[in-house]
Amino acid sequence: MNQKNIRIVLVHTTHAGNIGAAARAMKTMALERLCLVAPADFPSAAATARASGAADILENATITPTLAAAISDCQLVVGTSARSRRIPWPEQTPRESTPLILEQAGRGEVAIVFGRERMGLTNEELDCCQHVISIPCNREYSSLNLAAAVQLIAYEIMQASLVTTTAMAGPVIEPAADQQALQGFYVHLERVLTDLEFLDPENPRQLRRRLRRFFNRAQPTASEINLLRGILTAVGKRESNT
Amino acid sequence: MNQKNIRIVLVHTTHAGNIGAAARAMKTMALERLCLVAPADFPSAAATARASGAADILENATITPTLAAAISDCQLVVGTSARSRRIPWPEQTPRESTPLILEQAGRGEVAIVFGRERMGLTNEELDCCQHVISIPCNREYSSLNLAAAVQLIAYEIMQASLVTTTAMAGPVIEPAADQQALQGFYVHLERVLTDLEFLDPENPRQLRRRLRRFFNRAQPTASEINLLRGILTAVGKRESNT
Repeated sequence: MNQKNIRIVLVHTTHAGNIGAAARAMKTMALERLCLVAPADFPSAAATARASGAADILENATITPTLAAAISDCQLVVGTSARSRRIPWPEQTPRESTPLILEQAGRGEVAIVFGRERMGLTNEELDCCQHVISIPCNREYSSLNLAAAVQLIAYEIMQASLVTTTAMAGPVIEPAADQQALQGFYVHLERVLTDLEFLDPENPRQLRRRLRRFFNRAQPTASEINLLRGILTAVGKRESNT
Repeated sequence: MNQKNIRIVLVHTTHAGNIGAAARAMKTMALERLCLVAPADFPSAAATARASGAADILENATITPTLAAAISDCQLVVGTSARSRRIPWPEQTPRESTPLILEQAGRGEVAIVFGRERMGLTNEELDCCQHVISIPCNREYSSLNLAAAVQLIAYEIMQASLVTTTAMAGPVIEPAADQQALQGFYVHLERVLTDLEFLDPENPRQLRRRLRRFFNRAQPTASEINLLRGILTAVGKRESNT
């Protein structure tokens, strides 16, 4: 089952009860891998109580200090949001997102990332995501509980997997590069752009975000990353000769 | 909106927190009418705490002593279950059930009935229902929290109503650049790569194809094309200074 390659990542969760409820929500929909990024209060009796029969998911959860550590081996990273953002990350509904999630989970590791209870994911965290799932909500009250959001996404994945389990086997395409390769490319790109005085390292925010958004969306393969870094190396050599 | 005619009925709920969480789940999906059949503990501070900003739904909830009293004015009554039953009531998935629910809610009153936390609806209560929605779950762990079940059904109703009312107002994403802009970028890219001696214009085929395949797939927007060409221009200027 492709779901084995899907991890749910909860970033900076404040209330332990929500972690337990999220574990229960995951298990009802056959997702089992939970990763907690710097949880405020875990392990916790409140989490175990709310997990009900899903305590095994809490026991097997991995804990990381940063989001980057939680997703470094993933070829697809999907963020979640309960509302539309001003900055246009490519957004999909949960239902629109499931074909890509299941397809990529058939080939490698996929992370679905949920933010803090009160304020969701920061822009910097969304910069790590190739796609953002926006859950359609009541415009006047979009205060979806964290575990409820996990429940809805997990439900959509399960519904889609029930429909598609039989014949998935699409064309053999080279998988997307992993996050480590992508981050290495960004570091290289930004160094070259700084040398060219195209990027101001003192004030890189908007340009960095636009570039990352573009390349995240493009999902370069490992060999495409090598090609792009080859170009950067060629530019850098000329730079050092000037 | 047809949702105005849809009420959520919770039968013999044991934990007040679940009532509050159900109210919050309803409100995120624009359902507002809650009916409680003989709740064990209501009103309750635990319910209000879990309702978060949806306390208005709790304040306006109706309380009845029996299920029959809660649904007497309804023309469609739908029960819910987290698992298939041995006794074959006509069962639908949440998604299959929404066209009928929305159609009937356009003409009269509709009730969606949720049972007790531990054991759901009794057979006698299911006898009051014209249809039963069975939520597809992990066969090995179908212990869906009551508020999570309300969340999923309310979500499906809202998704179906968004599709039928058209106006979804998705995120505004800039369209992809047109072919003229893309071809202009390729000409510029290849000139710079040739100057860098990265591309051999005598034998460019494989490299050109790989680059075009990558950028075609990425579907850059017009402003992303401008950004990429700005980088190429910065590289080109250094070239001409060497």
